[in-house]
Amino acid sequence: MKNLPEKTVERLSKYRRTLLIALANGKDHIFSHELAYMIHITPVQVRRDLMLISHSGTLRKGYDVKELIDLISSILDSEQGIKIAVVGIGNLGRAIIGYISGQRTKLKIVAAFDTNPEKVDRIFAGIACYPYNRLNEIIKKESIEIGIITVPADSASEVSEKLILAGVKGIMNFSPRSINVSSNIYLEELDLITSLEKVAYYVKH
Amino acid sequence: MKNLPEKTVERLSKYRRTLLIALANGKDHIFSHELAYMIHITPVQVRRDLMLISHSGTLRKGYDVKELIDLISSILDSEQGIKIAVVGIGNLGRAIIGYISGQRTKLKIVAAFDTNPEKVDRIFAGIACYPYNRLNEIIKKESIEIGIITVPADSASEVSEKLILAGVKGIMNFSPRSINVSSNIYLEELDLITSLEKVAYYVKH
Repeated sequence: MKNLPEKTVERLSKYRRTLLIALANGKDHIFSHELAYMIHITPVQVRRDLMLISHSGTLRKGYDVKELIDLISSILDSEQGIKIAVVGIGNLGRAIIGYISGQRTKLKIVAAFDTNPEKVDRIFAGIACYPYNRLNEIIKKESIEIGIITVPADSASEVSEKLILAGVKGIMNFSPRSINVSSNIYLEELDLITSLEKVAYYVKH
Repeated sequence: MKNLPEKTVERLSKYRRTLLIALANGKDHIFSHELAYMIHITPVQVRRDLMLISHSGTLRKGYDVKELIDLISSILDSEQGIKIAVVGIGNLGRAIIGYISGQRTKLKIVAAFDTNPEKVDRIFAGIACYPYNRLNEIIKKESIEIGIITVPADSASEVSEKLILAGVKGIMNFSPRSINVSSNIYLEELDLITSLEKVAYYVKH
């Protein structure tokens, strides 16, 4: 299958979460309009996305919930799971470790890094914090593929370069400084301050 | 001025942050290509955005840094500041309070809410945590305009309705459940798990 568009991938992630809830509630079939209603999009959008991944339901019963979960999982997940490192164990870094560790199992945070000697060699929400100067070694040894950056703005670029040099293929940047990566690295930037300033702008206008 | 497009508002927020750093480094004028380089976009994009807000530099010296900061601030900020409440004081809620409180002054978190009696009436990073059943009263009394939702998925919708009923005009939803708001409310959803699953998908492909 060709690479899916970003927005479709985002919705697949949301469909799966919604389907897992439906399944837990004993639902074995679901119609596109029900799925659409639960995540506030149109049924046409749902059908278009599912056609893209070559899934079809039946007119009478809708989509088979379990089958659809398995199909989406085969697209989104890697069989052996994907390993993640978090760099920068401040408030945000710790919260993200706690938050993500509590969720799904195929995405696994396996290491944290910090320069602060008071944080190094401690365990945060079950994850060991290593000294920053061992980043290259640990990323390689553990075959970590995703790096989450939660360091202050000034260090974001340097951390990103170090992660990529060590072999990371995807980066999630939470620092308030935009970073630059080559086209073979997937970068997702979540800038909380900019998002909040955007909400404030539209509240004001 | 008419409402600016979302992407422009996001970039204005980033321009301002970059300009503040430039100013702190003693720079009083800046060219569009310098600003573009610092946030990894094209100079044409910078010039287009600044034309939209009716700002022009001079060919010889570029943009006046201080003037541009003031202009962007007059667009993004409200003179009296905008008040924010955070609902749900788990790891993520606490991290967000700590993170945002440490940044700019025009966006001000003034109250936190939780249902857990062990959290209520305590102070988190300088912010008082009130019982959830006082939300309506405090939001009204303090004229809080933005609500940040960091509660578990199951409660997100109910919290959102309560915030809007109390008078909030903008919502930032960090819960992994999408919510529905009427068109006069500005909603920004930051779904960390979906973002991470997206990174994982592109790392895999």
